[in-house]
Amino acid sequence: MTDAASRPSVTAAILVIGDEILSGRTKDKNIGYIAEYLTNIGVDVKEVRVVPDVEAEIITALDALRHRYTYVFTTGGIGPTHDDITADCVAKAFGVTIDVDPRARAMLLTRIAEKDLNEARLRMARIPAGADLIVNKVSSAPGFRIGNVFVMAGVPSIMQAMLDEAAPTLKTGIKMLSDSVRADLREGDIGTPLGEVAKAHPDVSIGSYPFVDPERGPNTNIVVRARDAEKLATAKAAVEAMLARVKAGLRQSA
Amino acid sequence: MTDAASRPSVTAAILVIGDEILSGRTKDKNIGYIAEYLTNIGVDVKEVRVVPDVEAEIITALDALRHRYTYVFTTGGIGPTHDDITADCVAKAFGVTIDVDPRARAMLLTRIAEKDLNEARLRMARIPAGADLIVNKVSSAPGFRIGNVFVMAGVPSIMQAMLDEAAPTLKTGIKMLSDSVRADLREGDIGTPLGEVAKAHPDVSIGSYPFVDPERGPNTNIVVRARDAEKLATAKAAVEAMLARVKAGLRQSA
Repeated sequence: MTDAASRPSVTAAILVIGDEILSGRTKDKNIGYIAEYLTNIGVDVKEVRVVPDVEAEIITALDALRHRYTYVFTTGGIGPTHDDITADCVAKAFGVTIDVDPRARAMLLTRIAEKDLNEARLRMARIPAGADLIVNKVSSAPGFRIGNVFVMAGVPSIMQAMLDEAAPTLKTGIKMLSDSVRADLREGDIGTPLGEVAKAHPDVSIGSYPFVDPERGPNTNIVVRARDAEKLATAKAAVEAMLARVKAGLRQSA
Repeated sequence: MTDAASRPSVTAAILVIGDEILSGRTKDKNIGYIAEYLTNIGVDVKEVRVVPDVEAEIITALDALRHRYTYVFTTGGIGPTHDDITADCVAKAFGVTIDVDPRARAMLLTRIAEKDLNEARLRMARIPAGADLIVNKVSSAPGFRIGNVFVMAGVPSIMQAMLDEAAPTLKTGIKMLSDSVRADLREGDIGTPLGEVAKAHPDVSIGSYPFVDPERGPNTNIVVRARDAEKLATAKAAVEAMLARVKAGLRQSA
């Protein structure tokens, strides 16, 4: 048994909170960033949801995800206005109280003069009881972690800074290794034999991604992913052998 | 009672299917496009989910969404390779058979020579029984509609062409109207009074979106949304009056 097989996988979900994403007014830039970041450190993103700024929707989605995956990362809804209700929803989901946290208030005061720390800005220091703060080096208002849930800002630059703070605290699995092969064939030419290769290598995930080469036309990238380097190499070699066979066959029939 | 209040709202969910989105290898460009498109024709997107190429996950998400919203729009997983399992999952969810559809096969033959119509390419003509096809003017392989579910490609240019075909068949609600006001104030300066304006206008959705003006620094856009033009105008005027009051207060205290 390899080391890769003996370590359990670490999973995550992303929960994007905000009417502006669902209306299309704001185009989300966080899902792809978080997905790639977590994949690179050995955390597998298994599901993403986007929900509106509605308490029942946020709590329902959060509960569905936090009980199912190792971690949940939320973005959005922790600013100073009435539509920023994420922290309160998280407190309700966990059944804890929420109030202005002295540590969070002190962080705000590093950037905001005391006279400007009004009721709205103090909303950003409201943290569920028992949560750990996530430092925000960009604009001072912190995110927080409670249980397996990381609550982060929606503004991409701030979210990214918070994710950098959160990442070292995560347990991580064996990193998913990946390699890709440019087929120089159309996806429809290789679909059936590629499926056979995939079936013969059940511990390896094989994906097929068509693209158009501006000079040579329709083409395919085949991405091979596995936690075990040896299995990855064996599957990649099988893909390459299959591609050579298909090309030889096409030359013969031409 | 206004016309807006008497027409029921039309809702939708987006279901993005694909390992490559969850691994971050491919950055989704469809969610924002579909969300904006549907909002503009009076269909409210209420939820988005991203799931992997795993049958049980696709079916569970599809069933959760199709019973809850007027429409579901899926993207991804309808190509010619083994990881393209969306059509089969949709058939299972609806409890219908799936086979090569003569209409879809004929569409493929407008672009693909009969001798090249191998088993893999024929996968793209597998359509659940009872579904209507969605023409694909870009690459010929169709999407389809079954019940309230629209199944579209993952490649953005193809998805967009399919959405153009599907849109005229949708029932639409009263279009959500929106207007925005540039506050020329920081979000933290207006959070409390903006919340009061929002509370006083319960039929109007008021969102607050901070941004940084390269010359003048932190600023806020306030977006006011409603189905009724009069209510929208009244709420916008209330926001503007509030902003004037806050600015006068800040000048006095300066």
